[in-house]
Amino acid sequence: MHILVIGLGAVGTLYGAKLAQAGATVSALCRSDYHHVLNNGVHLKSIWGNYHFHPHLTLKNLSNYPYQPHYLLITTKVLPSINLPKLIKPVVHPHTKIVLLQNGLDIEKPISQAFPKNQIISGLAFVCVTRLAPGLVHHIDYGKLVLGNYPQGLLSATKQLAHLFSSVQVPCQTTRQIIKARFEKLVWNAPFNPISVLSNGVDTQAMLSSKIMTKTIQQIMQEICLIAQACGYQLPQNIIQNKIHQTKKMKPYKTSMLIDHLEKRPLEVEAILGNAYRLAQKHNLSVPHLETLYALLSLV
Amino acid sequence: MHILVIGLGAVGTLYGAKLAQAGATVSALCRSDYHHVLNNGVHLKSIWGNYHFHPHLTLKNLSNYPYQPHYLLITTKVLPSINLPKLIKPVVHPHTKIVLLQNGLDIEKPISQAFPKNQIISGLAFVCVTRLAPGLVHHIDYGKLVLGNYPQGLLSATKQLAHLFSSVQVPCQTTRQIIKARFEKLVWNAPFNPISVLSNGVDTQAMLSSKIMTKTIQQIMQEICLIAQACGYQLPQNIIQNKIHQTKKMKPYKTSMLIDHLEKRPLEVEAILGNAYRLAQKHNLSVPHLETLYALLSLV
Repeated sequence: MHILVIGLGAVGTLYGAKLAQAGATVSALCRSDYHHVLNNGVHLKSIWGNYHFHPHLTLKNLSNYPYQPHYLLITTKVLPSINLPKLIKPVVHPHTKIVLLQNGLDIEKPISQAFPKNQIISGLAFVCVTRLAPGLVHHIDYGKLVLGNYPQGLLSATKQLAHLFSSVQVPCQTTRQIIKARFEKLVWNAPFNPISVLSNGVDTQAMLSSKIMTKTIQQIMQEICLIAQACGYQLPQNIIQNKIHQTKKMKPYKTSMLIDHLEKRPLEVEAILGNAYRLAQKHNLSVPHLETLYALLSLV
Repeated sequence: MHILVIGLGAVGTLYGAKLAQAGATVSALCRSDYHHVLNNGVHLKSIWGNYHFHPHLTLKNLSNYPYQPHYLLITTKVLPSINLPKLIKPVVHPHTKIVLLQNGLDIEKPISQAFPKNQIISGLAFVCVTRLAPGLVHHIDYGKLVLGNYPQGLLSATKQLAHLFSSVQVPCQTTRQIIKARFEKLVWNAPFNPISVLSNGVDTQAMLSSKIMTKTIQQIMQEICLIAQACGYQLPQNIIQNKIHQTKKMKPYKTSMLIDHLEKRPLEVEAILGNAYRLAQKHNLSVPHLETLYALLSLV
């Protein structure tokens, strides 16, 4: 089975390596660390065991890929500067399943519009993984995946992919309502990621030690629940309380958006806040806390 | 006439120097640049003409001040670390008028509670002035003062002080409603000061070139108008439109709070946002945009 990873960053390396371990023929588009990976592969230091991952083919350019991939595993950031439909066009064949393992809301739309006949598998990774250097990735904690078909449902190719992950001990759930799962993840990401950047580096514990900040975080979470509801997804009643409680129990955590900010990489502002804000506008919802965060983060 | 300036920073130097020019005997509490000012005075580079200001007495400690001042001109920042009532206690005599030339809302309260029998003159400076080095202050633009008695009214000592400023061409207005004037100034300060810091250095023009940020700024202004209204002050109907329009006409401007932030000085978070937020809470008003800004700025 041919799998092609688009974007061999930290997330792409971890899950690409696991799929290779599971027996798939995994190639990868790898632009920034191309020469290093071509010659040496990637060393994955992981809580699931260390692993040396050498992609079957390491590609700088997709036009050189000779197969019709069963799955495209897309793990790039969601950024306005990346035209994903154009990028993957050469490798999307009629039976190719496009797997979007990316953060945010409504990120499937451009792909679904460009490839209306292809099956789209939308996925979420709950993982703490970071690229330390070219060819060196550190998987620090967590790692669960949630997969489902976009916009809803659960087809056999999705179950098969989940099975492949499970066969190498990657915790992988499936869902018929992946958009609802995206909203649930956003309940955490929408406040904590932007606030960590706007406060110039404050970790999750420091945020929750401020009473007014805790209130603001709860309000933003509530606004995401409202948007989800307007879109037809009733999130669990105690989700806000639970997310706050879980975060308080976690070690002080610097969000991935904060790490991107500190390393001067572009931020996923539109995927995390912009698309949610536009859904609120479409449904005439008032989301003033989210609006303020989005306006501020757009300027950073 | 004896005037004692508390805090010979940029604002204290400018207005202290003008009062000396007007013929008053102006001394100054000057802690950080004490030795420099004691020996050399301050060179004031001003759009109103350059001036060398040597305080009558330069003090490191108020217990050495031998007079009963007519006016105490207080130009320190409003910070939790400065216990102003305790600081000025040695120099507050029964006939001393306490002039608070400071930013923010409700900043008179601690002074009014500590010295209930003294006349309090509350003042606003609309000025662009900066301390470039010890003994060197640059008055770049503007300079208007607004003075009035706290909590309201206009007594003769206030008019006399305004007259003194006017005699040396300092534009000085008086008002019977200084709290209303504070709210009007806050309509600008509440959005622009915090946003310039939270966006990590964006100037006023860049803020107003973002549509969503302009909307957020207007919402914050609207929330300040609501708080003013709940406190009994009806701000002019077109104030928001006017402030936005005026700011668009200004040159790109880095706010004083941003300069403080860039130079790692403490920020007047409570005077500019905290006190306004607490007034909103007291009156059960919903001010979600302000709340988000305040929560974020408290963490910075």
